[in-house]
Amino acid sequence: MQKPTDNSADFEDRVIVVGVGLIGGSVAAAVRQRYPNCEVIGVGRSGERLKAAEKAGLLTEWATEFSSELLSSSAVVVNCLPVSMIADSIRQIASLASDELVITDAGSVKASICDPLQADPKAQRLFVPAHPIAGGEQGGFEYADPDLFVDRVCVVMEMEDPQRVRRVENFWKSLGSRIVRMSADDHDRVLALTSHLPHVMAVLTTLTVGEENFALTGSGFRDTTRVAAGSASLWTAILAGNRSHVIDALRSAESTMKSFIQALADHDDLTVQRLLQDAADSRQKLN
Amino acid sequence: MQKPTDNSADFEDRVIVVGVGLIGGSVAAAVRQRYPNCEVIGVGRSGERLKAAEKAGLLTEWATEFSSELLSSSAVVVNCLPVSMIADSIRQIASLASDELVITDAGSVKASICDPLQADPKAQRLFVPAHPIAGGEQGGFEYADPDLFVDRVCVVMEMEDPQRVRRVENFWKSLGSRIVRMSADDHDRVLALTSHLPHVMAVLTTLTVGEENFALTGSGFRDTTRVAAGSASLWTAILAGNRSHVIDALRSAESTMKSFIQALADHDDLTVQRLLQDAADSRQKLN
Repeated sequence: MQKPTDNSADFEDRVIVVGVGLIGGSVAAAVRQRYPNCEVIGVGRSGERLKAAEKAGLLTEWATEFSSELLSSSAVVVNCLPVSMIADSIRQIASLASDELVITDAGSVKASICDPLQADPKAQRLFVPAHPIAGGEQGGFEYADPDLFVDRVCVVMEMEDPQRVRRVENFWKSLGSRIVRMSADDHDRVLALTSHLPHVMAVLTTLTVGEENFALTGSGFRDTTRVAAGSASLWTAILAGNRSHVIDALRSAESTMKSFIQALADHDDLTVQRLLQDAADSRQKLN
Repeated sequence: MQKPTDNSADFEDRVIVVGVGLIGGSVAAAVRQRYPNCEVIGVGRSGERLKAAEKAGLLTEWATEFSSELLSSSAVVVNCLPVSMIADSIRQIASLASDELVITDAGSVKASICDPLQADPKAQRLFVPAHPIAGGEQGGFEYADPDLFVDRVCVVMEMEDPQRVRRVENFWKSLGSRIVRMSADDHDRVLALTSHLPHVMAVLTTLTVGEENFALTGSGFRDTTRVAAGSASLWTAILAGNRSHVIDALRSAESTMKSFIQALADHDDLTVQRLLQDAADSRQKLN
């Protein structure tokens, strides 16, 4: 196989995507579009789904099991399984992998993935945890987007092997991401606020409004609750995998909610307006 | 002026838009686009802004004050002022208006506008309250959209004069809305849930996350908090104008939040998943 002469020169020869759903499919699509000479191998449980992903042009090859052969030559393994399955899967991959491999992931929690792997020296050496902050509420590779990671932050953990960290950073950068280095705990604390809290708030709003009133909803309700349509099982695992930080974030929101209700009940509209103004000033900075 | 021969035949000859912001501007744009022979007269405080709206093609005429002359021939008056100013403005318009007029509004609360007008027989006769459920977080006629009301629900109140109710319903229908008839109190109770609650939840999420963490937000945060960028003063008036229903809606959300936090703290992930699943099942019905 001839290597492309331009920006592909520094890229990997092989990418192994574990779990070819929305995120895994988008990693595959991004690589296929940007580096057509790179092999993209999908690994998952369902041969049928993997075959369909290959047919859709996302994969050059697929397998339903790991083998030493698959993991014997240089590759980036990108683990895109649901967060509750990532640690076990990485332990298995590391046990079969050659030292030329680097493993990264796309899990949206980090400490509950990294902590159980600390007793596994090989996993410690090969694995560089990451979290590309991108997604959507529709699951499945059918919704894969080759530009899902463009201009999005990808958080990468500091690990013991600086060369592997650079290799993983280069991988995500090559798909368009901006890299931010953080510890697992800092990541989890901040993501509890920026991602897990908004999800729960959308769920609470949806449950409180009730379907019987949906006829009188507008674009405000649609936008504020869009993410609540996401997979309940994936999100249960994310919230459970970041339990204490999520509880802290929710308690903090609950406390502001209490103040808000109290101000309304007291006819203290100056306080209500100040809270609305603070939020508007903040939110406008993102526009 | 020659009348168009097609669908314009049944439409009004004159529309007076009071308050030419996002909503008033969109009413004007919708009428101008669909009924080019209809006069569209803007009334507001700032001659400069009205002149600019005329220049932008939204108005055929404008005035900074009401006069008996302006209100002496047949017209639909659409009051698009902030909710706290609508009742007084309608009282003033009614006092000057001929009996050929009908007055409607676009206020997103209803009882606090209708109740103070019950002592005014002329306002009672001329005014048919309405609420087109449409909007955006950007204020000003510069964001006017001639299709803002298309396929959106417009709630219209039952009033004593069935002919005027039909005339107002026909007006909003002509701009593309679907009409739903409700009492002011039912409207306010439901909108507290479907519109005012989502706004406050977006505000609480924005305040809890904090600007210092915005770099690690994704599309979920952007969507769930978009409305929080809206005008603090307009929203303070809306919440104050629907105080008791909004407090009820917030207390209901607070109670579900407590259960959610408790389930997470108890490691009761079956309950967490059930709540997420109920919300996902509901929300998917809107997609």
